[in-house]
Amino acid sequence: MPRLKAPQRRDQLIAVATRLFARHGFRATTTASIAHAAGVTEPILYRHFRGKHELFVAIVRSVSDRTMRHWQEMTAALPDAAHQIRAIGQEFPAHVAKLSDEYHVLHGALALSHDRKVQAVLREHYLRIESFFASLVALGQQGGIFRRDVSPKAAAWQLIMAGIGYAMVHLNLSLVETAISREAIDAIVRGLRA
Amino acid sequence: MPRLKAPQRRDQLIAVATRLFARHGFRATTTASIAHAAGVTEPILYRHFRGKHELFVAIVRSVSDRTMRHWQEMTAALPDAAHQIRAIGQEFPAHVAKLSDEYHVLHGALALSHDRKVQAVLREHYLRIESFFASLVALGQQGGIFRRDVSPKAAAWQLIMAGIGYAMVHLNLSLVETAISREAIDAIVRGLRA
Repeated sequence: MPRLKAPQRRDQLIAVATRLFARHGFRATTTASIAHAAGVTEPILYRHFRGKHELFVAIVRSVSDRTMRHWQEMTAALPDAAHQIRAIGQEFPAHVAKLSDEYHVLHGALALSHDRKVQAVLREHYLRIESFFASLVALGQQGGIFRRDVSPKAAAWQLIMAGIGYAMVHLNLSLVETAISREAIDAIVRGLRA
Repeated sequence: MPRLKAPQRRDQLIAVATRLFARHGFRATTTASIAHAAGVTEPILYRHFRGKHELFVAIVRSVSDRTMRHWQEMTAALPDAAHQIRAIGQEFPAHVAKLSDEYHVLHGALALSHDRKVQAVLREHYLRIESFFASLVALGQQGGIFRRDVSPKAAAWQLIMAGIGYAMVHLNLSLVETAISREAIDAIVRGLRA
């Protein structure tokens, strides 16, 4: 395996850890197995990450950054918050499919981890998404397209809970075909309409 | 530990397995550790369950049965489907809190298990809940209180996805206070109204 520069090595270790955590779970995966699968020694892994908790934190932050960037690019040209929320919801099945290993890792840890660092970075991730959707909803209220008796925070959580639920049952049980998830997001947007 | 009759022993083993799966995850828990925590030998455990997959199946079916019975009792005296769905949603945080170990086990397996028997019993569980809510929504449509352009199946999944999402973030990160979950269920019911 050719020698990689530090940022590339870091990205490669994140990608390998994501795959192994998704396949075997966070607990069952060791830094030794991550280093082995990445074709490096454990001391090299430890030059980049203090351990698998730090790798997990890096995975969650990377999912957060990619999701936020993706949604901002996707919605930049759309006329209002209703179109933006619907577009994000309609495209969510494709987003989840593309990041399926990442979502397995996030949701596996969310369901089972009792580790405080793991929980802290997950909380940070969801609060970031809460704030993104709450701002969209507040903008829609200011623009007069959304009713004002809904709290932006509750609307944001309605979207987040639906997203987590969708990813959980779709990725793992192949339930909820796209037509059903589209109806669900339409219903949420309809419920917000002024 | 006194000798238990077969049904009590079975229930005790299910309860012990639920606690251990919730705490350590399905994979990390062995039949030996379940037998030990229940104060019996492994051969005695094997008289009741062929292994931990069968214990998992029994846990999911027990959650399914208890949830269905609870919701049927809770809603029997309510006047219509809108009141019934709202009542189930408003009480859901208490239901999840009471069955928190059970939900950890279900959602941990849902997020991470690649085992086909585990996935089959989870699918059976969600399809049972889908059919329960879809019938309620169809009744509400026939009674004229719910709009008819919503498919009962999509409405059922909107409720299930919200429930899974709520349990995931609330049980594990203490996010989504009760006021927010109440607003979310109100919004779903409002979106169904004719």
